[in-house]
Amino acid sequence: MIEWLGTFGKTKSGGVTRLLFSQTWQEAQFALKDKMGELGFQTYFDSAGNLFGRMTGSIDKNHIILTGSHIDTVVNGGKYDGAYGIIASLLAASGLVERFGYPKKTIEVVSLAEEEGSRFPLTFWGSRNISGFYHLEHVKNLQDDHGVTFFAAMRAAGFAPEKYKPAARTDIERFIELHIEQGMTLEKNHNSIGVVTHIVGQRRYTVRIKGESNHAGTTPMEGRKDAVSTASYLISYLTKRAKEIDKQLVATVGKLHVTPNVANVIAGEVEFSLDIRHHEEQILDFYCQELFSMFENVAISLAMDISVSQWMDVKPVRMDDELNNWIREVALKQKICFQDIVSGAGHDAQVFASICPTTLLIVPSHKGISHSPQEFTSLEDLATGIHLLETILYKLAYD
Amino acid sequence: MIEWLGTFGKTKSGGVTRLLFSQTWQEAQFALKDKMGELGFQTYFDSAGNLFGRMTGSIDKNHIILTGSHIDTVVNGGKYDGAYGIIASLLAASGLVERFGYPKKTIEVVSLAEEEGSRFPLTFWGSRNISGFYHLEHVKNLQDDHGVTFFAAMRAAGFAPEKYKPAARTDIERFIELHIEQGMTLEKNHNSIGVVTHIVGQRRYTVRIKGESNHAGTTPMEGRKDAVSTASYLISYLTKRAKEIDKQLVATVGKLHVTPNVANVIAGEVEFSLDIRHHEEQILDFYCQELFSMFENVAISLAMDISVSQWMDVKPVRMDDELNNWIREVALKQKICFQDIVSGAGHDAQVFASICPTTLLIVPSHKGISHSPQEFTSLEDLATGIHLLETILYKLAYD
Repeated sequence: MIEWLGTFGKTKSGGVTRLLFSQTWQEAQFALKDKMGELGFQTYFDSAGNLFGRMTGSIDKNHIILTGSHIDTVVNGGKYDGAYGIIASLLAASGLVERFGYPKKTIEVVSLAEEEGSRFPLTFWGSRNISGFYHLEHVKNLQDDHGVTFFAAMRAAGFAPEKYKPAARTDIERFIELHIEQGMTLEKNHNSIGVVTHIVGQRRYTVRIKGESNHAGTTPMEGRKDAVSTASYLISYLTKRAKEIDKQLVATVGKLHVTPNVANVIAGEVEFSLDIRHHEEQILDFYCQELFSMFENVAISLAMDISVSQWMDVKPVRMDDELNNWIREVALKQKICFQDIVSGAGHDAQVFASICPTTLLIVPSHKGISHSPQEFTSLEDLATGIHLLETILYKLAYD
Repeated sequence: MIEWLGTFGKTKSGGVTRLLFSQTWQEAQFALKDKMGELGFQTYFDSAGNLFGRMTGSIDKNHIILTGSHIDTVVNGGKYDGAYGIIASLLAASGLVERFGYPKKTIEVVSLAEEEGSRFPLTFWGSRNISGFYHLEHVKNLQDDHGVTFFAAMRAAGFAPEKYKPAARTDIERFIELHIEQGMTLEKNHNSIGVVTHIVGQRRYTVRIKGESNHAGTTPMEGRKDAVSTASYLISYLTKRAKEIDKQLVATVGKLHVTPNVANVIAGEVEFSLDIRHHEEQILDFYCQELFSMFENVAISLAMDISVSQWMDVKPVRMDDELNNWIREVALKQKICFQDIVSGAGHDAQVFASICPTTLLIVPSHKGISHSPQEFTSLEDLATGIHLLETILYKLAYD
């Protein structure tokens, strides 16, 4: 089924490109709708483009156990990211119905419209519609790289903005997501399941250093206002401190731009990105405060201008303890090799956590590769995740 | 005269662009030839494009005291860089002849064809022809940014390569150059003249760091092969060590390129330039050896690939002690505020030093600005240089 879903938007290099509301996205959502129908689900779309497959509960049909993940991908991404969570949910729920008949509580499988932010400059369009956080107002001015507006793209995919109704669902009792890992921890530890305890908070900044451009030969080292050497000093410091403060704290400078960027001219300006993540707001606060006060001191002592501007602030999210405790017991009984893990990447589960008890389970990804045609998870690991999800859905909807 | 020469190639922003063999370059050289004629010089061009104005010696006409600088500029450079040395030589030599008649030894003033390397990828075309270091073989494959070959440019300016004769002159007894400072030392010290003791050696390198591109959220700090943080560590270290080893040692990373250069991706590769200058080969050796062995250790300890490739190695050059000693005495007598200085920038004088006793005198440049329309030296400082040059020429050619 992974291979089948991967045919919609398949790229030359064996990857997948399914951007929100694109042709390949539509083909994938409608093929999934048919597949859900074949497997016995009642299907419907909400007006944001989320596809639902429903197994109506025999006793308590208005309390929904929701499971699934997102259908969209990055450009030339892998076949597993998002897709696995949808397929796992479909197979687990339909398998249960086949064996045990309809559940007591309603189970819904969701193929979320969008999570990656690869077409338009916003993320979690799918889950944040369901949670009520997003509505049309948030996207009315957005355009993709080709100048297509969000509204035009919606309409082209059959979701006319005029017919849009805010979802803000209140009937969801639990949400469970399965996803591949975007790192190497599970593989390195030879574990098949990661029980996610937290999804990290993310803060992103742009740091600008203004120094003084000057002749590289005739300006003595003392008194230089060299933006490159100052940036290097800050980056060395922030790397060292991130390592010292907490094992799970990560800080990354991935993007750096030098002006004028000439070999024999002292750089007058450097701009760099700073991406900081941890699952405790307190640690993020402590690290950022220390860092930016150090930046200020450096700016004063070198008489240079260092400015820090934040452009992302996602709070850390805690997955549901009760769900997780129960999952750990099940995993132990079923002799599944598992571990607790903090997700360093963002996931739809962090959005659902704001409206209902939620958890996220991850399966290994070979060499930690994701967002690449080389993404791969073994059939065995995929199956372990699905069986565990079955057990959870049984407990939540049948018990 | 500075203003007059600055009209040839004047730019909109008040700067000067005179690239080797260009229209504005030709206009300037031929206008200078006429001016030399008016001032009583015999004039001639050599086949490389260098213009000479000659005051033939009455006794020893075959030993030449040469003085001058270069006529070419960088793109939108200043009116003083190069031009001042030519004009100072013209005024000093013609002033002497006016007052004292023809010298005993021949004085030649030279307007060197090229020093900056702003049109073709080579520098010192003018002086290195005279020294015999360059001939046609070195330029036959060169093109400028518009695809014009060096030969075509020569021909267009009236210097047909077919008529080229290597100069390799052996009749030059002394060379003296006047130039504006390309730094702030003289202005800061309130001195009018810098007696250059050395012109620095320059080594330039490209440093390439290959790490491993990875997810900024899910890759723990330990075990990262982050090319940006490693580059920062090396740059911080090399800056710190340059400061510690010698006050006159300078090391500059002016150019830096990150791959893939994305905020939430650990950089897999960084390439940076490294420009190192000092006037003692020994210090350059010591610093470079220490640095590159430190780079090797870092590469080993992080299991990353760090490669260093050198693309420039200009040896330090010592100006003539005897000339300088005598100049210091004169300056003391004439109550000129002067100081010894090391030139951190390259100059034609370093080429002449390989064929005859040579020195370089510098005058202040306001705020140290050069290679800019904002270049400025006060009339007083310009005049002090000319008067000192007169005294030197008198001593060398009349005494």
